[in-house]
Amino acid sequence: MTNPASVDNITLFVALICVCIVIGHLLVENKWTNESTTPLFLGLCSGVVILLSSGGTNSRIFEFDEQLFFIYLLPPIIFNAGFQMKKKQFFQNFMTIMLFGALGTLMSFTIISFGARYLIEMLNIGSLEIKDYLAIGAIFSATDSVYTLQILSQEETPLLYSILFGEGVVNDATSVVLFHAIQKYDLSDINVKTAFQFGGTFLFLFTTSTLLGVSVGLLSAFIMKKLHPGRHSSDREMALMILMAYLSYMMAELFDLSGILTAFFCGLVMSHYAWHSMTDGSKVATRHAFATFSFICEICIFLYVGMDALDLEKWNFVSSCPAKSVGMSALLLGLVLIGRASFVFPLSFISNLTKKSTSYKLNLKQQVIIWWAGLMRGVVSMTLAYNQFTRFGHTQQQANAIILTSTMTVVLFSTMVFGLMTKPLVRLLMPPPILNRNVLSSEPSSPNTLPLLHSSQDPESDTEHEDIHRSASLSRILSTTSNTIHRYWRKYDDRYMRPLFGGREVVHPVPASSTNNDSQ
Amino acid sequence: MTNPASVDNITLFVALICVCIVIGHLLVENKWTNESTTPLFLGLCSGVVILLSSGGTNSRIFEFDEQLFFIYLLPPIIFNAGFQMKKKQFFQNFMTIMLFGALGTLMSFTIISFGARYLIEMLNIGSLEIKDYLAIGAIFSATDSVYTLQILSQEETPLLYSILFGEGVVNDATSVVLFHAIQKYDLSDINVKTAFQFGGTFLFLFTTSTLLGVSVGLLSAFIMKKLHPGRHSSDREMALMILMAYLSYMMAELFDLSGILTAFFCGLVMSHYAWHSMTDGSKVATRHAFATFSFICEICIFLYVGMDALDLEKWNFVSSCPAKSVGMSALLLGLVLIGRASFVFPLSFISNLTKKSTSYKLNLKQQVIIWWAGLMRGVVSMTLAYNQFTRFGHTQQQANAIILTSTMTVVLFSTMVFGLMTKPLVRLLMPPPILNRNVLSSEPSSPNTLPLLHSSQDPESDTEHEDIHRSASLSRILSTTSNTIHRYWRKYDDRYMRPLFGGREVVHPVPASSTNNDSQ
Repeated sequence: MTNPASVDNITLFVALICVCIVIGHLLVENKWTNESTTPLFLGLCSGVVILLSSGGTNSRIFEFDEQLFFIYLLPPIIFNAGFQMKKKQFFQNFMTIMLFGALGTLMSFTIISFGARYLIEMLNIGSLEIKDYLAIGAIFSATDSVYTLQILSQEETPLLYSILFGEGVVNDATSVVLFHAIQKYDLSDINVKTAFQFGGTFLFLFTTSTLLGVSVGLLSAFIMKKLHPGRHSSDREMALMILMAYLSYMMAELFDLSGILTAFFCGLVMSHYAWHSMTDGSKVATRHAFATFSFICEICIFLYVGMDALDLEKWNFVSSCPAKSVGMSALLLGLVLIGRASFVFPLSFISNLTKKSTSYKLNLKQQVIIWWAGLMRGVVSMTLAYNQFTRFGHTQQQANAIILTSTMTVVLFSTMVFGLMTKPLVRLLMPPPILNRNVLSSEPSSPNTLPLLHSSQDPESDTEHEDIHRSASLSRILSTTSNTIHRYWRKYDDRYMRPLFGGREVVHPVPASSTNNDSQ
Repeated sequence: MTNPASVDNITLFVALICVCIVIGHLLVENKWTNESTTPLFLGLCSGVVILLSSGGTNSRIFEFDEQLFFIYLLPPIIFNAGFQMKKKQFFQNFMTIMLFGALGTLMSFTIISFGARYLIEMLNIGSLEIKDYLAIGAIFSATDSVYTLQILSQEETPLLYSILFGEGVVNDATSVVLFHAIQKYDLSDINVKTAFQFGGTFLFLFTTSTLLGVSVGLLSAFIMKKLHPGRHSSDREMALMILMAYLSYMMAELFDLSGILTAFFCGLVMSHYAWHSMTDGSKVATRHAFATFSFICEICIFLYVGMDALDLEKWNFVSSCPAKSVGMSALLLGLVLIGRASFVFPLSFISNLTKKSTSYKLNLKQQVIIWWAGLMRGVVSMTLAYNQFTRFGHTQQQANAIILTSTMTVVLFSTMVFGLMTKPLVRLLMPPPILNRNVLSSEPSSPNTLPLLHSSQDPESDTEHEDIHRSASLSRILSTTSNTIHRYWRKYDDRYMRPLFGGREVVHPVPASSTNNDSQ
């Protein structure tokens, strides 16, 4: 927290989070609300109260602080996502995820930038440079992966979950890297050379961030396996896990890499190796603790966004020209819708070519869900917009103020309206048979509980009983390649990695047959 | 963290904590070191490195920040202590704890203040007011309860642990309340009226802080029992526990009460009621998570103290008159030794009068350990000293600089030298039979692990098979009163509190006989 965070502010904020949790619990059976709308709405309400009690001068408890968001709140969320991710699902859809996350984001970025460039001029809001248009493209290409996690369930729709979430992480990383590249490079005249440099930088950042995450994850696994700190104290091994996870993110930020990618891959590697070397109590506790951290950080973010939406300074600028602001918001929302549609459907077609089994192919209904569930814009967009269009959270230019308020409007509208419609849409398009069993059984029906209830089990256990005997010529070649890579990786993992870094087989020694992975 | 906490500083600090944990693990079998000396020593080393690399201008990663310590690092430690405390032991020794913690601290405060008043003048270090002497008394009456927890084990020496730790908490609270009262009141002429006012304020703060902690604890228990948020998501119930615990501390700070007392009693109540209403996974996870938070915060504090010890600014003042500084440190150490001896032995005598059973009486060996283990001065002392003798961590007066460096010296010396001698002293005076069993068994021998390994068990389970047939007249009356109160409380608890707030019997329904508490 920043310096102006005084005792009363912190107390109020913590109390609000508690209220959010209780209300969220009471509304859990309500099919329209979800974990994000409660804090957003409560944030709005408390914004109104603060606004009234401060005589209309202020609506926020804290000033918006980029550092707070990127250094303290985002890392736990992203790391936890990597940690709880079902790795088999993720790697099976790796190609699709990269297509959507990297190429898709670039396509969306291009379309939104071009659209903004030619359509915003018509609104006549003031002078914007080419850099600003590109920044708008990057800002509105960043989907809200936090929100996606809230709506979809890893248990009910594993394929969609892994694709959407994986895409969300790669997409966040892509937009942030793009955004920083735009701020750094002189992009007044784009030619082939700068485009290639740009692409090179992008690939370099992408690779090194991933490698850093994997390295820190492996280091932690090595320490856990060789020193086994849980032997003397469970606190020590849990503390080490938490701190090394955070360290990976901070190191990435220190080297100007993408902390999001690093933390995600660190989480992935830690849950594959290091987690298995922990004592039983710590295993349960670590999963719970990471999930809880992440949960608290999410609520903080949404609560803050709700509160910030009423910040008067920005709205004052806009009040003189409400039509422009509404037009701008509508324009941006339209661009977001088109930008996402323009890559989801074509790339789904390409992705389907690489899949042998129809159960891994994306049908039209699933494509619509992928399109829709990625329309939400969240705190990453807002943070980037603040970064580009304000100085320390304040702005004096009309154009900037309009873009900021429009960003806010897009974030709120997409989260509230699109977001609230996603859950019913998923239920409409894909009535899941699993869901009914969950509701009827005594087990909790919320997706959030599932990874925790099964927390002492293995996070990798996915069933693999797939009918893989249908084929087409191109898809056959592509999928055979991917299967071969996976098989070699398994062998390599079993023979060299797990003995060194720990992992499932090593902890529970069973006859090393390939079937034991399918048995759960 | 404060604003100047940039990415590189945080990264370095987190990396240092990781190194501390690994080294601490490697040295765990070494009987001289403990969890606190490693970060202290590593902090000193990195202080040297930073000093050399910055060309001798700076030895610290962060500026000392009172807010950071009192708002972020101290609450988890104190709350966890209350949460993991064995309540039966604590309440059985409640009178002794209050005697030592409140009356003892006041005695020690008086002796140190008087000693400082008459002895410091002989050193001729500059002008000090009466307020400064009283502040010195309060500063050096604050024992380091964090450190005590590190050295003694709740399993090996339960009586000493509960007394020393309980005393530590009450002592921390007493010194902080005393200190703030000294700063607030005009104490240039102390008369009976101001003394009574002072006592009244003290009692008021003490009672309201305790009540606030109990209330928040009961509120959380009520929410857990009635709403049962774990039904839908374990994250939610864990988050609620963590946040309400923190909220109790922050509310106390907001109302200018003693957050230390509030957090401690909130933890006590939460573990007695709220914890039992959680789902099984969350129970394990909550205990681990609180212990781990606390562990990380402790390391942060000791690491910081180690780093801060080399801050040049203060030593520059002192270098002109090293004799005075050494004299001052020796004087203060002496006063600390005498101040503590002056209340431990007389009050132990009084405390023994109230005990029926000899096994609850403190023999001379135990009294020596209580005296010795409370000699360490830690971060509370340092923080108070900074508060009184600097402005925002800097000072320009020679007298103030000498007091600060002497405080630092006392903290380092008492922690390193007295601290290192405590473990061997305990082993010398009380060779514990339990200890040998632990070392030989396959169970981890570190005290830290025990509450975690048994984490799904009940934290209240103490054996009560005591020979209570010996008696003396006064002690008989006193102990009968205390037993009666305890019996009535049990009845009231079982009949009214547990049905409303949850608790052991309610969760595992067994025939409600009084013996089931002794069966574990």
